[in-house]
Amino acid sequence: MGIENYSETKFYKLDKPIALKCGKSLENIKIAYQTYGKLNNNKDNAILVLHALTGSAHAAFINKKTNKKGWWDNMIGPNKAFDTNKFFVISSNVLGGCYGTTGPKSINPSTNMPYALDFPVVTIEDMVKVQKKLVDYFGIKKIIVAGGSMGGMQALQWSIAYPEYVKSTILIATAARLNAQSIAFNAVARNAILKDSNFNNGNYYNSKHPENGLAIARMVGHITYLCEEAMYKKFGREFKGTPSFDFGIDFQVESYLEHQGKIFVDRFDANSYLYITKALDYYDPIKEYGNLENALKNSNSKFLIISFSTDWLFTTQQAKQIVSTLIKLNKNVSFVELESKCGHDAFLLEFEKQTKIIKSFLGE
Amino acid sequence: MGIENYSETKFYKLDKPIALKCGKSLENIKIAYQTYGKLNNNKDNAILVLHALTGSAHAAFINKKTNKKGWWDNMIGPNKAFDTNKFFVISSNVLGGCYGTTGPKSINPSTNMPYALDFPVVTIEDMVKVQKKLVDYFGIKKIIVAGGSMGGMQALQWSIAYPEYVKSTILIATAARLNAQSIAFNAVARNAILKDSNFNNGNYYNSKHPENGLAIARMVGHITYLCEEAMYKKFGREFKGTPSFDFGIDFQVESYLEHQGKIFVDRFDANSYLYITKALDYYDPIKEYGNLENALKNSNSKFLIISFSTDWLFTTQQAKQIVSTLIKLNKNVSFVELESKCGHDAFLLEFEKQTKIIKSFLGE
Repeated sequence: MGIENYSETKFYKLDKPIALKCGKSLENIKIAYQTYGKLNNNKDNAILVLHALTGSAHAAFINKKTNKKGWWDNMIGPNKAFDTNKFFVISSNVLGGCYGTTGPKSINPSTNMPYALDFPVVTIEDMVKVQKKLVDYFGIKKIIVAGGSMGGMQALQWSIAYPEYVKSTILIATAARLNAQSIAFNAVARNAILKDSNFNNGNYYNSKHPENGLAIARMVGHITYLCEEAMYKKFGREFKGTPSFDFGIDFQVESYLEHQGKIFVDRFDANSYLYITKALDYYDPIKEYGNLENALKNSNSKFLIISFSTDWLFTTQQAKQIVSTLIKLNKNVSFVELESKCGHDAFLLEFEKQTKIIKSFLGE
Repeated sequence: MGIENYSETKFYKLDKPIALKCGKSLENIKIAYQTYGKLNNNKDNAILVLHALTGSAHAAFINKKTNKKGWWDNMIGPNKAFDTNKFFVISSNVLGGCYGTTGPKSINPSTNMPYALDFPVVTIEDMVKVQKKLVDYFGIKKIIVAGGSMGGMQALQWSIAYPEYVKSTILIATAARLNAQSIAFNAVARNAILKDSNFNNGNYYNSKHPENGLAIARMVGHITYLCEEAMYKKFGREFKGTPSFDFGIDFQVESYLEHQGKIFVDRFDANSYLYITKALDYYDPIKEYGNLENALKNSNSKFLIISFSTDWLFTTQQAKQIVSTLIKLNKNVSFVELESKCGHDAFLLEFEKQTKIIKSFLGE
């Protein structure tokens, strides 16, 4: 098992441009990815795991440089939910991201400068299209796709775009499209970045980054990832010290958010935050296909859908919309709403509950 | 009735300094107020209405200059919930506000400059203390207090601080204290203001105001005043035009928030936003008195408490905490949760439902 104590990021370069949904085409796309486990001879034991808004290809095991575990390390590994003794797990950074896959901070070959806002607006559909190239490169015959939050949207899109190719789809804490409230939160987050005095129309790579705006965006995000129950449990109304009677940090919850904002600006690119939240806002197969039934009618996949009771960003009601569509279509679908006090973050935290369900779904 | 077609703001100056909860004392306090209806000879028909975060003394009728109606004009006037044919209604701007009552943009007598952040941090308790001076000036014997949101917190504080004096208390869409999630939203809002490059430690009165930060604060606020149901009803996922494939405004909900942000910066002072949100965060009679029973045990008031089914900023659960305390204490309390699709904003919008209940409570 020592073979997999560490994870390693590799890169795959596409030799042809990709036609994007916005009408533009993008060339020289590089995909950052990691794999865990071994692809079998039939090339049919692959699971593609798909990350959420700020994730990376580093889904599992320890990164040698940072000594940090992957974002779904609890779920991927020997005997875990996604068992690397049996499955070949692939994880890649999304198009538009800032962890190695081509995105707004990548060099634009026509200017030799970072793209910044000249990077085309990409969609969930585009991200999936690019992932398919990576999977094809491995010669994979049939695939299992799994993801939480935005990762779930990508998994859903896989089953829509490649209905014959996807054999199992695992959608966790996700929805077929964002509701108006989530679009509103994303609008606030982008506004904070776009109005930061260091934003400079996205051309900040050689100067001060729009750190204040990005930190505010992250703070807003974290409020939506938790829920009042989780906040109450974690922080309540506890003061950090005594009331300051000024505008410093008074409450534990303020301190938490400030900290989350601060550490985020060291690890994420503000432009990528703009692009990826826009991709989230735009994704809407219901509108695209007239209704969700049309979108999913050709799918040959079986589905596992998991929601969490206190998730108010991607609600059980939204999960049920997908479930009821699949039932109408006579597809093979399992659905569980897990009790949790963790809000949306549950998909990253409640690994024991998820593990049982996923193992059973994957036939183990 | 023509006599009350227009509203007029008057000012009352305190001749003595007020000792504040923070330990400092504040002198030369001026209170902006309006009154509607007539005080009777017994001086016992007064209702003090208390405004929310961004309100003013202008609660009812039309302002001659702006031609705008007061924030609770639906509720205050002849034959309305607060019937000015019978009651003498008083409304004042809170301490720390920016609509005429002394606040951070007022001139500091020791420097002849606006206080800015030299203004002391004020609390709900301080606001109420100052309001009591105004009410005493009218020689009022017993009073009815009523407010929604932060106005409800002030009304609650009135019944705690002046248990013999308050005869009726109307608490609408409010709570005994903010929960952690609301503190978190306020922290984001203040952060956006404090980090605005024009903030200049609050000394922006002679230069560009921190408009971007204040607009972001307001956008966050508006998300919490609505609810997903209200957002869905108002905007859904409707585009303003076609997808822009850039970072301009795409969705109706974005356009709404952007507009709300823009109009707010023309009418509100960023420093006041800091002070008033901090007062909201700090208010906690449960902590102050050990529990809510201790805080309310001496009250001679009867209570009407109204919550709204879709209000997630001040929830029915929080309202019930006050109700159950009052029941334990054998106080006279009526409670209604009104069905509404308007979220927290319902206290400003659902006037027909509220009118019936309030009229009945006031014995009409």
